Amino acid sequence: MDDLVPPANFAMVDHGVFRSGFPQKCNFGFLKTLKLQSIVYLSTEPYPKSNLEFMQSNGIRLFRFAMEGSTKSSAEIHREIIKEALKVILDEQNYPLLIHCRSGKHRTGCVVGCIRKMQRWCLLSIVEEYRQFAGAKARNCDERFIEFFDVSNLKKSSQPAICFRNTFNFI
Amino acid sequence: MDDLVPPANFAMVDHGVFRSGFPQKCNFGFLKTLKLQSIVYLSTEPYPKSNLEFMQSNGIRLFRFAMEGSTKSSAEIHREIIKEALKVILDEQNYPLLIHCRSGKHRTGCVVGCIRKMQRWCLLSIVEEYRQFAGAKARNCDERFIEFFDVSNLKKSSQPAICFRNTFNFI
Repeated sequence: MDDLVPPANFAMVDHGVFRSGFPQKCNFGFLKTLKLQSIVYLSTEPYPKSNLEFMQSNGIRLFRFAMEGSTKSSAEIHREIIKEALKVILDEQNYPLLIHCRSGKHRTGCVVGCIRKMQRWCLLSIVEEYRQFAGAKARNCDERFIEFFDVSNLKKSSQPAICFRNTFNFI
Repeated sequence: MDDLVPPANFAMVDHGVFRSGFPQKCNFGFLKTLKLQSIVYLSTEPYPKSNLEFMQSNGIRLFRFAMEGSTKSSAEIHREIIKEALKVILDEQNYPLLIHCRSGKHRTGCVVGCIRKMQRWCLLSIVEEYRQFAGAKARNCDERFIEFFDVSNLKKSSQPAICFRNTFNFI
């Protein structure tokens, strides 16, 4: 049997939630092993036909949020889109779920940073994790965005339905 | 309520399995949220009293494997110790479980690399993950060790008892 090829920048965020860069055809065998229910795609670009076919034949639902990859969007637009994406990401009925953008660094990094904020991680640990994925491409504006993202009105939208529910430690 | 401080280099390896650098007192609040059953400690150094007390008061079992932090051990010694550690790590009765050494880079990186090999990840993806944690301290000898580690006689030692069991895709 061939070895499995995870997408670039693949990692587990928490139970039932994964993150990565853009999945290529060579990653489909690996993605099958995750038994995904949903993909959260953070981009304005259309989804490739081969990826849509893979999702259809594996019963995976696509949630697309039109986030710009560059830094030209205002923090306010960014914030509203991320709040909408978080509603999907925090709903455990959508698990297992993969969050991805193009490189798995900036847009995905911001969204995961907001999740960590909801989990009450301290800012330096959130930024350490962001930089682990962004590497030399880390953006100050993303880190600031995470720092000032307000999680006070955000809550998990469903009852935990998975194991080790206490790992999730939302405010 | 205070923010939570994960240990340095903290991440989720798979359902019920976490990795990190050495936990300090400031990390105990965060570690409590993981509801750990076990800690796998990869070092010849004694465990600090404060950490032992934290474990005792939270019912966490310590498994210590005397791995040298430097590169002076032969690959053969290294290999035998890691095989013993993997027996504990693959036994889901010990979950949730935290694997750590000093920095969470080399010894922990080797062990996680061997787990990924059992999960049939391709070598380049395993090394990408190893480097994400080791950063500028990545060691060629660790990467070679992972490349030549033989997983053909290793199997999961217990039936999966956790959700999303198919995420584990052992050979």
